[in-house]
Amino acid sequence: MSAPVLRQAPATPFTRIHGIGAYRPSVIVTNDDVCQWIDSSDEWIRQRTGIVTRHRAPADVSVIDMAEGAAREAMASAGIDGSQLGAVVVSTVSHPYATPSAAAELADRLGATPAPAYDISAACAGYCYGVAQADALVHSGAAEYVLVVGAEKLSDFIDNTERTISFLLGDGAGAVVIGPSDTPGIGPSVWGSDGSKSNAIGMTHSLLDVRDLSEEAERDGAGNAAAVLGTEAKIWPTLRQDGQSVFRWAVWEMAKVAQRALDAAGIGAEDLAAFIPHQANMRIIDEMVKQLKLPETVLVARDIADAGNTSAASIPLAAHRLLKENPELSGRLALQIGFGAGLVFGAQVVVLP
Amino acid sequence: MSAPVLRQAPATPFTRIHGIGAYRPSVIVTNDDVCQWIDSSDEWIRQRTGIVTRHRAPADVSVIDMAEGAAREAMASAGIDGSQLGAVVVSTVSHPYATPSAAAELADRLGATPAPAYDISAACAGYCYGVAQADALVHSGAAEYVLVVGAEKLSDFIDNTERTISFLLGDGAGAVVIGPSDTPGIGPSVWGSDGSKSNAIGMTHSLLDVRDLSEEAERDGAGNAAAVLGTEAKIWPTLRQDGQSVFRWAVWEMAKVAQRALDAAGIGAEDLAAFIPHQANMRIIDEMVKQLKLPETVLVARDIADAGNTSAASIPLAAHRLLKENPELSGRLALQIGFGAGLVFGAQVVVLP
Ligand SMILES: CC(C)(COP(=O)(O)OP(=O)(O)OC[C@H]1O[C@@H](n2cnc3c(N)ncnc32)[C@H](O)[C@@H]1OP(=O)(O)O)[C@@H](O)C(=O)NCCC(=O)NCCS
Ligand SMILES: CC(C)(COP(=O)(O)OP(=O)(O)OC[C@H]1O[C@@H](n2cnc3c(N)ncnc32)[C@H](O)[C@@H]1OP(=O)(O)O)[C@@H](O)C(=O)NCCC(=O)NCCS
Repeated sequence: MSAPVLRQAPATPFTRIHGIGAYRPSVIVTNDDVCQWIDSSDEWIRQRTGIVTRHRAPADVSVIDMAEGAAREAMASAGIDGSQLGAVVVSTVSHPYATPSAAAELADRLGATPAPAYDISAACAGYCYGVAQADALVHSGAAEYVLVVGAEKLSDFIDNTERTISFLLGDGAGAVVIGPSDTPGIGPSVWGSDGSKSNAIGMTHSLLDVRDLSEEAERDGAGNAAAVLGTEAKIWPTLRQDGQSVFRWAVWEMAKVAQRALDAAGIGAEDLAAFIPHQANMRIIDEMVKQLKLPETVLVARDIADAGNTSAASIPLAAHRLLKENPELSGRLALQIGFGAGLVFGAQVVVLP
Repeated sequence: MSAPVLRQAPATPFTRIHGIGAYRPSVIVTNDDVCQWIDSSDEWIRQRTGIVTRHRAPADVSVIDMAEGAAREAMASAGIDGSQLGAVVVSTVSHPYATPSAAAELADRLGATPAPAYDISAACAGYCYGVAQADALVHSGAAEYVLVVGAEKLSDFIDNTERTISFLLGDGAGAVVIGPSDTPGIGPSVWGSDGSKSNAIGMTHSLLDVRDLSEEAERDGAGNAAAVLGTEAKIWPTLRQDGQSVFRWAVWEMAKVAQRALDAAGIGAEDLAAFIPHQANMRIIDEMVKQLKLPETVLVARDIADAGNTSAASIPLAAHRLLKENPELSGRLALQIGFGAGLVFGAQVVVLP
């Protein structure tokens, strides 16, 4: 018998972002609010981070709710309905269940069933990681349109009295629809990781500590567990970081990554209309602008002042605001770069929708 | 000024699996062991599930350790070292940290830094989802070689006294290296979701319940939390399912998905050398074999008898065993299909490494 030959999907030459959407939750937390919980000041926080407020979602608004809000706007602006989605990718670290994924429920709410749906864990690089995957899925012919959502309810995983990261973080969601294009609309992704720095940002506890406490309560009676809870009430895992290490890494390494994304796309800083970095710290943004020698004409996203750091949601949220305030950016080039826990990073040049 | 034109990556026509590896942890749990914890019998479990034993990892072996073991074997058999990896994808629902990902640390251990690294959440379809992504990443030119790992330490997220799912589950890891090929080696992925059934498999608790308990202890003193723990000691989230719904869905829908993967690849059941379904239940496997009208010549993976259901790890573990016991399968066609919490599913025809 002659060996059977597999069919593989045909490739689509070019991809682009067809639409963008954002969801900003309603609760606004000021620096003065934050200073009730930690020893800090409005002035310190503004000077060291550029953050003035962050938005947080109320108890009845979940990661999936915010993802849905952003996705619906992105789909409407792309003119795409759920049945046209070939994949739904949600980047998040704050969906409160190990399984099922946020993406599966989101896909169903959007009328995208039976599209493939999965969550990815790549922290603050998660949106750029999602764009890299969507680009590959469309490019390779595996999907026609892919929804990429960055959605975080970080307020569920922070301890407000903790001083290394909690005051920086906000909630929100941003989404884009990526699909085929007649002309190149997404440059090659420059993405990567450095797991040797995996301790720089992470959780205060393993979920196994929760398991151990629970088992202890069962074995020895609640009294003993109460003693554990008494001394270590915050057994529930929350975010923490070594801020200085992250700051140094971001300032030294991320401008180089951004430059490589420009080079890979075959364009120069002078070709850019906008720069949309992850909104981690205004000083990191300023430093990258300097190192990349961005001309004054390049608009720089500074959504962090209003939104704080929303991890995987920060770049699409910032892009959405920039486009709203400067509609003439549509169709022009933006450089976007995400970086965070892992450590991981991802950057690409895109044509703005 | 003339509008700058982005460069996009060139496509690679064909992809294939270059190597496979497995890690089976050392602790063997028999049905008699299980029957110490739940009201059941060795006979019932064998008849209804086909499971005889499941492997579990000891306390000092993590998801990342198992992933590393499987990955090293896959890389060695592919003749690929860490520096050649263009991406590291870990499919898991049992890494006990929201962030950083297991993949970032794994990439570093394997000498793959600075390769992009991320975890995906697609439960028991996670391996086939990972293959679909790796195929697209290589196909689209985003990466040359991609490591895909399914790794689970489910024993950390089960309550042994729980009767709907815990007795089915085992720990383990399987990995493949996917890269370019002169001939087609991975058929189009038929993958999808049905989030309307997201309640069929999931967790007993939200992580927010853990947060609430912890906050309660802090607010009202440990005594009150102790009372909560006393009545609900198992606050830590573990897996649960509506077994019958999942069983029916798998039996009715999954053979159709598998058939679509055959059709998409342009081959028939008679062209297959092997069938490697997710190892969820021997009766589901038997039913799919029947519905697909697989000829007797097709070898069927039945690793479940030894390994139980290892979620994202089950297909590469089963493929690894099949290849070891039948080395003549190398270079021949296998149909693989995963399905699980979401609900999600993924299938493709592959040339075995
Ligand atoms: C977190 C961060 C704002 C801290 O700013 P910093 O300038 O590095 O501050 P340092 O940690 O060096 O501490 C400097 C001083 O400020 C104090 N300080 C730290 N956090 C403070 C806070 N929240 N409020 C007030 N004072 C604070 C320190 O105690 C220290 O005081 P000292 O000089 O008297 O010892 C900054 O490191 C940062 O933004 N890092 C990167 C964060 C990031 O991007 N993380 C997420 C990546 S996705
Ligand atoms: C879980 C599963 C083995 C249960 O088998 P089942 O044949 O569906 O069993 P049912 O739930 O219908 O229960 C039938 C009887 O067995 C009993 N039973 C259920 N679980 C049992 C157990 N672990 N041991 C002994 N008896 C059990 C029930 O109490 C019931 O008894 P009754 O007839 O006296 O009321 C089966 O539903 C299954 O494999 N489902 C799919 C699981 C799966 O693939 N999940 C993961 C997807 S990735």
